[in-house]
Amino acid sequence: MAFRHKHILGIEPLSAEDIQLILDTADSFKEINSRDIKKVPTLRGKTIINAFFEASTRTRLSFEIAGKRLSADTVNISGSTSSVVKGETLEDTARNIEAMSPDIIVIRHGHSGAPHYLADRVGCSIVNAGDGAHEHPSQALLDLMTIREHKGTLKGLEVAIVGDITHSRVVRSNIYALTRMGANVRLAGPGTMVPPGIERLGNVSVFHDLRDAIQDADVVMMLRIQMERQSKTLLPSLREYARFYGLNPLNLTLAKPDAIVMHPGPMNRGVEISSYVADGPQNVILNQVENGVAVRMALLYLVSGVDSMQDQ
Amino acid sequence: MAFRHKHILGIEPLSAEDIQLILDTADSFKEINSRDIKKVPTLRGKTIINAFFEASTRTRLSFEIAGKRLSADTVNISGSTSSVVKGETLEDTARNIEAMSPDIIVIRHGHSGAPHYLADRVGCSIVNAGDGAHEHPSQALLDLMTIREHKGTLKGLEVAIVGDITHSRVVRSNIYALTRMGANVRLAGPGTMVPPGIERLGNVSVFHDLRDAIQDADVVMMLRIQMERQSKTLLPSLREYARFYGLNPLNLTLAKPDAIVMHPGPMNRGVEISSYVADGPQNVILNQVENGVAVRMALLYLVSGVDSMQDQ
Amino acid sequence: MAFRHKHILGIEPLSAEDIQLILDTADSFKEINSRDIKKVPTLRGKTIINAFFEASTRTRLSFEIAGKRLSADTVNISGSTSSVVKGETLEDTARNIEAMSPDIIVIRHGHSGAPHYLADRVGCSIVNAGDGAHEHPSQALLDLMTIREHKGTLKGLEVAIVGDITHSRVVRSNIYALTRMGANVRLAGPGTMVPPGIERLGNVSVFHDLRDAIQDADVVMMLRIQMERQSKTLLPSLREYARFYGLNPLNLTLAKPDAIVMHPGPMNRGVEISSYVADGPQNVILNQVENGVAVRMALLYLVSGVDSMQDQ
Repeated sequence: MAFRHKHILGIEPLSAEDIQLILDTADSFKEINSRDIKKVPTLRGKTIINAFFEASTRTRLSFEIAGKRLSADTVNISGSTSSVVKGETLEDTARNIEAMSPDIIVIRHGHSGAPHYLADRVGCSIVNAGDGAHEHPSQALLDLMTIREHKGTLKGLEVAIVGDITHSRVVRSNIYALTRMGANVRLAGPGTMVPPGIERLGNVSVFHDLRDAIQDADVVMMLRIQMERQSKTLLPSLREYARFYGLNPLNLTLAKPDAIVMHPGPMNRGVEISSYVADGPQNVILNQVENGVAVRMALLYLVSGVDSMQDQ
Repeated sequence: MAFRHKHILGIEPLSAEDIQLILDTADSFKEINSRDIKKVPTLRGKTIINAFFEASTRTRLSFEIAGKRLSADTVNISGSTSSVVKGETLEDTARNIEAMSPDIIVIRHGHSGAPHYLADRVGCSIVNAGDGAHEHPSQALLDLMTIREHKGTLKGLEVAIVGDITHSRVVRSNIYALTRMGANVRLAGPGTMVPPGIERLGNVSVFHDLRDAIQDADVVMMLRIQMERQSKTLLPSLREYARFYGLNPLNLTLAKPDAIVMHPGPMNRGVEISSYVADGPQNVILNQVENGVAVRMALLYLVSGVDSMQDQ
Repeated sequence: MAFRHKHILGIEPLSAEDIQLILDTADSFKEINSRDIKKVPTLRGKTIINAFFEASTRTRLSFEIAGKRLSADTVNISGSTSSVVKGETLEDTARNIEAMSPDIIVIRHGHSGAPHYLADRVGCSIVNAGDGAHEHPSQALLDLMTIREHKGTLKGLEVAIVGDITHSRVVRSNIYALTRMGANVRLAGPGTMVPPGIERLGNVSVFHDLRDAIQDADVVMMLRIQMERQSKTLLPSLREYARFYGLNPLNLTLAKPDAIVMHPGPMNRGVEISSYVADGPQNVILNQVENGVAVRMALLYLVSGVDSMQDQ
């Protein structure tokens, strides 16, 4: 099956077959990262621009390493040094970048929809590395890859996602991806952090008590409390949040005995997740990071339209 | 003809033959940027340091992409992270960088003459990527390349340059380059922004009314109003500036019907150029950016003294 | 002899044989940096992450160039853009980076012991690029390489080190390295800047008058006064410091006639070293920088465990 998308703007436009192909491709790339020589010539002579208009270390690092291991030339732009500060429009910035003939622009931007806006206006491929509170597709795909590795399938799984549902681009992409692949999603968070009506998305149920959400779950995904992204008034206190919505060894026993624990990072230990759980036997958090490089290699490869994974 | 310059410090030291050779070389490199595999081994094993002591996105990006497409190793320094803040002199910083055996240092610096100062003191090649209000040679060369592409020649063309003539390194380099190639330059700007006596450079005329300058012009080049580079007192207001010195569809009709419109970017839409013109059929603004990569490939190649463009 | 260290955390854990092997390896790499094509395939397909959680230009640049000339893929993280600011622990940051399968993490960190802490917790190699006031092993090794080049040996040399002994990671690494190789170390600095009891390290003597320390010395190493690293109260004034602890042509005559003058940079000209000396015939300061690239190539190569320097 051929991949028919030029851009990766989000999970929403992807079919179950698309997701399947991405995950299968990522599986085949993953082995490269454990080789002695972690490099294949797949994207040699391609130019990838990592345009991070919002601060990020791990996502930028993951995309940059993915590009380099595929032998692409990678170039970084960060918001602080960008022309954006000189009053140029985002479209002009993007069209200027595009005029330098990159093959792919990986973009993180604080405004929801920025990658879509650009995809309509430039000729190269756009990969969304996180746009506002909208989508973060590569994160959801690495989450699915990790779940599939541990559970063998996604179909019929009970996946609990706990935290600030309203402001999380991670959860939005995960809802699309998980439900499309046949998993059941349970959301839990304080009332101020769950958007009303979200259960209408299908295969999604909402709980306000963390314990109800993780009861018999196969997967428990804890979200980061993003102090920087919300007004303080949504949370009475971090201690109270940790008490009611933090994952600890006690409430984790409610999930299935072989449930896995996930977190997109960076973790606030002692807030949304206790160190006992973060470092415990059920955590797959570093597998997520590891799979992130493989998923991003797959995305860069698939949107590039390069014919085959020759010479690997 | 062989290129006899070790450094590119400005346009002033270049002869018409030098400029011709750079433009011809850039023409031959341009095609590489539209290939499927945008990479040639020309500068393999060469180290290029992009030392940007003044913020820049597009020029740094353009030089970095140019270097990588020639297979050079490129390394970046930016002002904010530099030892400059630790009280080291520019000469010491440069000599330290030089001791790491780079082949080329591409430098942008806020002080006019910084690249020349270094060229006298280090052994490697220096390429000026903009020094204070002095010169910005790669910008002028990409402008000439773009004009030549659209007009077939530079000789005898009427080129109007409008804006803050006094503080612009772009205009200074363009005056040298255009007059050397036989074009006639017309400058226009508010009285506070045009240095007295500039017409003595030869083939340069000064106008204070934009309409007089662009009358029957072949090329209209609008300069960016650089809020960050001048005291506010030079301009009564941006609205008034736009009214008298902004290019719009109406005053553009004064130029020749096939006149091209240029801007070095980043644009202040609605100030020095209206969006109708910036996006209109006569604009070649993104061609300028595209040609920038080719011109910088040519400059890096020519100063490197590598014998031939073998294996391309 | 095979190198038996997976990490370079400091000089303290290294034997004289280890140091000898590193210096010999660096000698053999040095020649590559003067070649026309400065690149060998030794570390092709290896990923090196330069994690500089403390500002640095020259050390990062030197490690990045060293990695690229060995054909490794290099990726940079700097403190300001790091997740550290989001409240993640250093260990979590490091384990996340490690999950992306780098081969080597080069780390600079403001806290003494940070590289050791990580080496105990991650699987890849750690190279310390400076930790707090603790160690800066690659600096000491490039110093030894430079001394050996000029003096033929290290054994029996009299090496004077002058400045802020207490807060300098450079001097700590140099004391370990020099005494291990049989040199005698003389330390001099204001009473507030020399830790009591340091002479107990063996082969180390302490002076409070610079002139006593450099009398008949083979090597005079001046330390940078680090305004940013100490409270102002340690120094009455820079002028007074320069007068009593600055190296100038007059007091330099006390050293042996063929003594060499060293400085780790960046220099405060007119404070710890006069320009006459810094630029004088006895200075080897830029040789130090040059050798820095070779030493770092040697360290990256040796910790990587790659079998041989094939194909060079």
